[in-house]
Amino acid sequence: MPIYTPPLRDQRFVMHELLGAVDELKAMPRYADIDADTVNHVIEEAGKFCAEVLLPINANGDAEGCAYDPSTHAVKTPRGFREAYDKFREAGWQGLAAETEYGGQGLPHLLQIALYEMQYSTNQSWAMYPGLTVGAYECLLVHGTKEQKDLYLPKLASGEWTGTMCLTEPHCGTDLGMLRTKAEPQADGSYKLTGTKIFISSGEHDLADNIVHLVLARLPDAPAGTKGISLFVVPKFVPTGKGAQAKVGARNGLHCGGIEEKMGIHGNSTCQIIMDGASGWLVGAPNKGLNAMFVMMNGARLAVGVQGLGITEAAYQNAVAYARDRIQGRSLSGVKNPDKPADPIIVHPDVRKMLLTARAYAEGGRAFAYWVALAADKQLHHPDETVRKDAADTMALMTPIVKAFMTDNGFQCASQCMQVFGGHGYVRQQGMEQLVRDARINMIYEGTNTIQALDLIGRKVLMDNGAKLKKFGKLVQAFIDEHGTTPAMNEFVTPLADLGDKVTKLTMELGMKAFQNQDEAGAAAVDYLRVVGHLVYAYFWAKMARIALTRIERDGDKVDPFYTAKLATARFYFQRLLPETAYHIRAARSGAKNLMELPADLF
Amino acid sequence: MPIYTPPLRDQRFVMHELLGAVDELKAMPRYADIDADTVNHVIEEAGKFCAEVLLPINANGDAEGCAYDPSTHAVKTPRGFREAYDKFREAGWQGLAAETEYGGQGLPHLLQIALYEMQYSTNQSWAMYPGLTVGAYECLLVHGTKEQKDLYLPKLASGEWTGTMCLTEPHCGTDLGMLRTKAEPQADGSYKLTGTKIFISSGEHDLADNIVHLVLARLPDAPAGTKGISLFVVPKFVPTGKGAQAKVGARNGLHCGGIEEKMGIHGNSTCQIIMDGASGWLVGAPNKGLNAMFVMMNGARLAVGVQGLGITEAAYQNAVAYARDRIQGRSLSGVKNPDKPADPIIVHPDVRKMLLTARAYAEGGRAFAYWVALAADKQLHHPDETVRKDAADTMALMTPIVKAFMTDNGFQCASQCMQVFGGHGYVRQQGMEQLVRDARINMIYEGTNTIQALDLIGRKVLMDNGAKLKKFGKLVQAFIDEHGTTPAMNEFVTPLADLGDKVTKLTMELGMKAFQNQDEAGAAAVDYLRVVGHLVYAYFWAKMARIALTRIERDGDKVDPFYTAKLATARFYFQRLLPETAYHIRAARSGAKNLMELPADLF
Repeated sequence: MPIYTPPLRDQRFVMHELLGAVDELKAMPRYADIDADTVNHVIEEAGKFCAEVLLPINANGDAEGCAYDPSTHAVKTPRGFREAYDKFREAGWQGLAAETEYGGQGLPHLLQIALYEMQYSTNQSWAMYPGLTVGAYECLLVHGTKEQKDLYLPKLASGEWTGTMCLTEPHCGTDLGMLRTKAEPQADGSYKLTGTKIFISSGEHDLADNIVHLVLARLPDAPAGTKGISLFVVPKFVPTGKGAQAKVGARNGLHCGGIEEKMGIHGNSTCQIIMDGASGWLVGAPNKGLNAMFVMMNGARLAVGVQGLGITEAAYQNAVAYARDRIQGRSLSGVKNPDKPADPIIVHPDVRKMLLTARAYAEGGRAFAYWVALAADKQLHHPDETVRKDAADTMALMTPIVKAFMTDNGFQCASQCMQVFGGHGYVRQQGMEQLVRDARINMIYEGTNTIQALDLIGRKVLMDNGAKLKKFGKLVQAFIDEHGTTPAMNEFVTPLADLGDKVTKLTMELGMKAFQNQDEAGAAAVDYLRVVGHLVYAYFWAKMARIALTRIERDGDKVDPFYTAKLATARFYFQRLLPETAYHIRAARSGAKNLMELPADLF
Repeated sequence: MPIYTPPLRDQRFVMHELLGAVDELKAMPRYADIDADTVNHVIEEAGKFCAEVLLPINANGDAEGCAYDPSTHAVKTPRGFREAYDKFREAGWQGLAAETEYGGQGLPHLLQIALYEMQYSTNQSWAMYPGLTVGAYECLLVHGTKEQKDLYLPKLASGEWTGTMCLTEPHCGTDLGMLRTKAEPQADGSYKLTGTKIFISSGEHDLADNIVHLVLARLPDAPAGTKGISLFVVPKFVPTGKGAQAKVGARNGLHCGGIEEKMGIHGNSTCQIIMDGASGWLVGAPNKGLNAMFVMMNGARLAVGVQGLGITEAAYQNAVAYARDRIQGRSLSGVKNPDKPADPIIVHPDVRKMLLTARAYAEGGRAFAYWVALAADKQLHHPDETVRKDAADTMALMTPIVKAFMTDNGFQCASQCMQVFGGHGYVRQQGMEQLVRDARINMIYEGTNTIQALDLIGRKVLMDNGAKLKKFGKLVQAFIDEHGTTPAMNEFVTPLADLGDKVTKLTMELGMKAFQNQDEAGAAAVDYLRVVGHLVYAYFWAKMARIALTRIERDGDKVDPFYTAKLATARFYFQRLLPETAYHIRAARSGAKNLMELPADLF
């Protein structure tokens, strides 16, 4: 049975010591009353919920999966999922970051992300149900009419109803311009939607009374391609009544046509949704649906990145416990455990390497993701327009990195932590192989990691001539300027500065090549994202090392060993993980020709 | 439904054009009569069998898995497995490389490896049953008494009985020195074995009349640790009669106590084998069991490496078919498919990168593995002692690289080829996620890839001061000397020579550090193996590029496009995959301190 301890100490470190989050939040009127105790209390309670309620139903959720009944089109979630969902709703977690006017708690996105992390560490499949509800809430909050908001937002904030996003169709996923679902206008201002959507996470289930689908479809006169896509809200049951008094009414003309058998996330229903004249209501402007949906997709991309983080943390904790407990072989540098027939495997350098890889990516990812979450709060709620604009730029630049870098790392770390278990990792009961299977989807959904890389290099970097990247570069430079002459910081600042220079040069070089031939950007994109990802992590690891060094200097032998471990992990990151950039820079610079010259029929 | 076309063209290229295998084989009296037609005919028929018989039962084998009946201790294999096994036996494939005196066909190991590759491409779970039988055959051939050989070898060569290797126990896998299974000598010269073995692949099933377990156990007076382990043959049914006339007799005192639920290879039974006074017979000398078992383990390690190759080829073929067929988005460098609403995804650079990664590792791996298989033939059958010794050194040095490098690549390639399918790769019906799950075990069993890396750097390289590695270095140097001045070969020879120099320097540096502290070897081992693996692949890719260039020069526009593709893939390998060594050299040189300084209780 897998274990999980909420990483409260490191979460507090990131929020308070690294980000100074409370002061940052207090600068926003919406969060003027926040204090450290509240923050700490919320994450502590959230951690308890995840460890006590979600973790125990993760393994059976995987083993049982969801069950589809073709006669009723109903989906039954695994044992315990409904009970956990009821507890979650009753405790008010669904509306953690939702507006108080819609019944939410009005707490920062930062805390939402901390909750997400722990949910994903303990039960990704389950956490996707409330996660998509948050996404639907945010999308309607921004793009819904007042009537739509009054109707749907309280239900979504309370979790009484859940949400989905319906984009993919059998013939199109990445390329939504080809989508075919039709929306016919009706005399009463509503629309009738007809079409088939696939891969709809949480599309049908038995957790809640109603499901609010946000559906991309085409109006009859819509232009071809992505400029002819509109967004509709299409509830499973058409609501009756208004606002908070609304109830579920008649069954709408849509049903679940089946669920997918998948590699992992078996506890989450991945549905085919068939609409046959289903009633829907336009959200936002006609033909601007993709823009509206991007609110939900960007939120989902951050959440998916945090899925990578959550799984990394869970895999790490379990692998450490196993590596301390399992005795096998002797330390190469001398017996460590003379009373026992073998040493615990944590004495072996490569076991430590696998563990430290997960640790460094988990802690680096936590610092990064929480910083981005704080930027989300600033973007929405900061009184200073410049701060809001900067935060928006941060969000835009960092979203594909959160999504792709953190999920690539999550899969790699889950796999490495499973490796620590040897053959025992491959059998189901340890729970490690489930983490690997669950982690694998995160590299695919919400835009494959290739799409994220193209988004980064194309839209986020080259399109504005690197302006957003330069903004981040200024943060890095300020840190280098401040600490570049501190001898103890040399081992961190030097490689950080070196990588910063290399990213600048690489970006210029790729920009010039892509100007000639856009395939050059495509050929470098995935390697480029990994390089920039490491620049970001190197920045945060250098900052964290500085805090640790300061504390070690101040407290000497009495220093909280948390800082000793932080410093050792920073060193590991710089010496063992960051050097990967040497490879990716070479690959990114090698050009498109080595990919494009082989004719398709010779593959 | 996954597809598979036997890669006959490339197999012939490797055997005939790259390795000149027929001439090499003809130099051995045992294979004096071999000719190219025989070789080609055998791989063609083997390919047919795999594509027509094994592939169609791979998906249902995964979905159904094996079923264990606790009341009878019997294991039922998935639908179709028994019928396929009967066909395999009847066609004589089981004894392909077995001695003619025991009813085998006496063909080279090279052809056995080619058969393995295609079996593993089409059905790894199924192929493990006959694969372990080959291993048991080889072990008894070397270490069995005449009586044991006369009794067991004909049954194993025909596949009438199957084999297993019983090493792991619940508390020990990597560290076999701790094993506890006991063997008590009996008056009749037999032994009674008592103990529990786990993770026994093919340990119980319904394919054959008897199962021949090769079991590691301790004699009553055995010294502690690995020097007190003996090998026993322990049949499921005790045979009656002698030699070819032997039949199954009484049920022996052992049974299957259960099978594991695993991440993949569901069609292969992974058994707990409980021995309760089971009759066994000593194989080889007392307390020398681990040495004897190493015959089987080394064979198994090569086979597992080839599992990595087989899965890579299968994943590649399916991903290419999907990438040609699936239309989605437009080429960044201009529309390629103006009549359709989108271009096939094979136009996208990163899709090509994922495909070419698998292609380059498959073709490079095939060249490498087949070369090692030819060395296996030389080691056993070459009349010249120096050749035999050189071949033995090659086998010793290359076995951990075959096992670890090829299985790491296999998992990575399966995952990348699955990524080509986007969300469709994550659902079961495409068969891609099964390849990823099946490929994952290969990094673990027969000695984890960390163990392989320690074997390489410790026993195979540093223990003889790099003598075996230098022998391989001479091959590389001879190639460089021959082609270093050919301008068209520059792009291959220069990086090959550069990497060769770097490996030499890295090896010396690590040797000196490990002399001070063995943890330094452990800390560098996994990165070191990847670097040496790339040196080997660079050598074979350079050789293959030379052949391709020669043909292109000779035939001009009329050249067989096979060579055009080979050259393009060689370029891809050198420009996109080999640069990974820049990372691993840095990581390997970074030392043990960054792994060892964190106290175990601070993890």
